[in-house]
Amino acid sequence: MILFYTNQVNTIDGSLVEEEFHHCTHVLRKKIGDEINVTDGIGNLYKARINQISRNNLTFDIMDMQTFEKPARSHCIAISPTKSNDRIEWFLEKAIETGTSAFAFVIFKRTERPHLNLTRLQKIAISAMKQSLQYYLPTIEILENPEKLIKNYENFNQKWLANCEADEKDSLLNQAFKSENSIVVIGPEGDFTKEEIEMFEINGYASISLGKTRLRTETAGLVAAVLLQNMA
Amino acid sequence: MILFYTNQVNTIDGSLVEEEFHHCTHVLRKKIGDEINVTDGIGNLYKARINQISRNNLTFDIMDMQTFEKPARSHCIAISPTKSNDRIEWFLEKAIETGTSAFAFVIFKRTERPHLNLTRLQKIAISAMKQSLQYYLPTIEILENPEKLIKNYENFNQKWLANCEADEKDSLLNQAFKSENSIVVIGPEGDFTKEEIEMFEINGYASISLGKTRLRTETAGLVAAVLLQNMA
Repeated sequence: MILFYTNQVNTIDGSLVEEEFHHCTHVLRKKIGDEINVTDGIGNLYKARINQISRNNLTFDIMDMQTFEKPARSHCIAISPTKSNDRIEWFLEKAIETGTSAFAFVIFKRTERPHLNLTRLQKIAISAMKQSLQYYLPTIEILENPEKLIKNYENFNQKWLANCEADEKDSLLNQAFKSENSIVVIGPEGDFTKEEIEMFEINGYASISLGKTRLRTETAGLVAAVLLQNMA
Repeated sequence: MILFYTNQVNTIDGSLVEEEFHHCTHVLRKKIGDEINVTDGIGNLYKARINQISRNNLTFDIMDMQTFEKPARSHCIAISPTKSNDRIEWFLEKAIETGTSAFAFVIFKRTERPHLNLTRLQKIAISAMKQSLQYYLPTIEILENPEKLIKNYENFNQKWLANCEADEKDSLLNQAFKSENSIVVIGPEGDFTKEEIEMFEINGYASISLGKTRLRTETAGLVAAVLLQNMA
């Protein structure tokens, strides 16, 4: 199934614009009268029929609508941007495929790349959501320091810090439960500062290990995402 | 710690050539007398001192040698090449970082890209092994059909087939045990054929699920790698 995304839709009709329009009409060469599947990224899947194609957009009529329940638990990966943009972008794509619902890109003391293009990240998120046939668009936020992260997630009941110094017995999988809202924080390439670790610990974050090997920042993020999705 | 790789080493001395030589002398500007850490990819870590640098290689004396035990279990991911080479290359890099010890790239009926550059894959493997501070170089083989795969791994005691049709309750994590030699087979973008699935089943491969979402081939490979490393 090929899925299109739009945020311009109501219960009767809607439209596709920009990349989605281009992909539908120029790449897949859909015509007036063709049926398409569209999601709004907030849980709805529309069976739709194209009724008009103009230069910059197309409109469709909705024939059927299905609403998917929002997952009861929320999983957030909070991660430092990496020096190479590629690496953080593939992390985002892959982590969304595995089902992660929230992302916080956090500027830590030792983060080497303090500039991120949120628009580009959101496009990657839409593409990964569609690719993996999900109907909820993950949330992405960029936070200028870890203090903001701690504040935004203070109500989460499982909070973890991926700490390179943690013992293997403190594996994430041994400790986490599926039914809870969970956040895992992954530090920058130069690691957290001692002060940052202390601040997280004071605020209820427990140190966990993601395995025996030394992982790159973006690999650690993805391992955490896979483990959160597969908790007991 | 920065780690170099060589297969030209004995208990007294050794040499670095090609990329390893270049990285050591031209990028990191190491000089005669400098100490370096070298692994041979078969379990040994050498503390060494550079004693000579010529145009194309350098030689070193070994001051100390440490041998790491080979992991008791072997984990193999058998996977179809993907259309885009990039995707299979990052899969390899990431799966090695997480600790996977064996890779089989298998040409299935519906594999779209039947040509792989083994030399390039081996370079990626060396780089990922060093990056993640491991001392055993994973094995990589390219197999021209799934029959060869079945034959090569007939002695493994846990054999799994990542089947898009499998129920979520047949999650890999619920079924696998850490202490066993395990292989997970990931099909091509167009999925296994019915005949391939039957052949694997007859040969003791059980169908498993890698989660609720639809995963790309290379993401499925990485999810399987992470789960194998984190089994009970």
